[in-house]
Amino acid sequence: MILHLAVFTWNDSVTDADVEQLTDALTTMARGIPELHSYTAGPNLQLRPGGDYAVAAIVEDEEGLAAYLDSPGHQSVYERYLGRMIAQRSAAQLPLDAGSFRAPQG
Amino acid sequence: MILHLAVFTWNDSVTDADVEQLTDALTTMARGIPELHSYTAGPNLQLRPGGDYAVAAIVEDEEGLAAYLDSPGHQSVYERYLGRMIAQRSAAQLPLDAGSFRAPQG
Repeated sequence: MILHLAVFTWNDSVTDADVEQLTDALTTMARGIPELHSYTAGPNLQLRPGGDYAVAAIVEDEEGLAAYLDSPGHQSVYERYLGRMIAQRSAAQLPLDAGSFRAPQG
Repeated sequence: MILHLAVFTWNDSVTDADVEQLTDALTTMARGIPELHSYTAGPNLQLRPGGDYAVAAIVEDEEGLAAYLDSPGHQSVYERYLGRMIAQRSAAQLPLDAGSFRAPQG
């Protein structure tokens, strides 16, 4: 399994409305991509110094990652939002053992 | 619940041995911090353009995050490794619903 992480810093022109629309678009996109085992995206909580926004996704393998990142849905979000909003992007993928990484039930 | 993410880019002097020792130190550190529900750290798989290394941690709340980031163990890893290795750091925290984010069993 693969954990894909991305942290974005916005350029100065980005508004709160842009961020809200982006989050809605990413959430809708993720529902349409069955290869995503888990997905979360949103503004950084800023509990420590850091970027403006982050995305985290869990997929089965490299094909699953491509099905997500190369999907029409993801490309559309890039064209409509991320492409013009991003000043800086840091991303990485880490291997995960099945069942090894989780937010346990309450 | 909180997902903490960090992506690092190394400066030029960092060696593979440094990275291995860092990963061992982070893994040992994580075992000693009960507030960490989940933890993973390692070199970026480089399946797409990105940083050199990433860390992801799931904690219960802000206190759990502080118990991790302000722990003697984490500070020691910073002093011995990360402080001299990092050229660039991008981090963020995202809220997670219990049970919402997981690498499912095989």
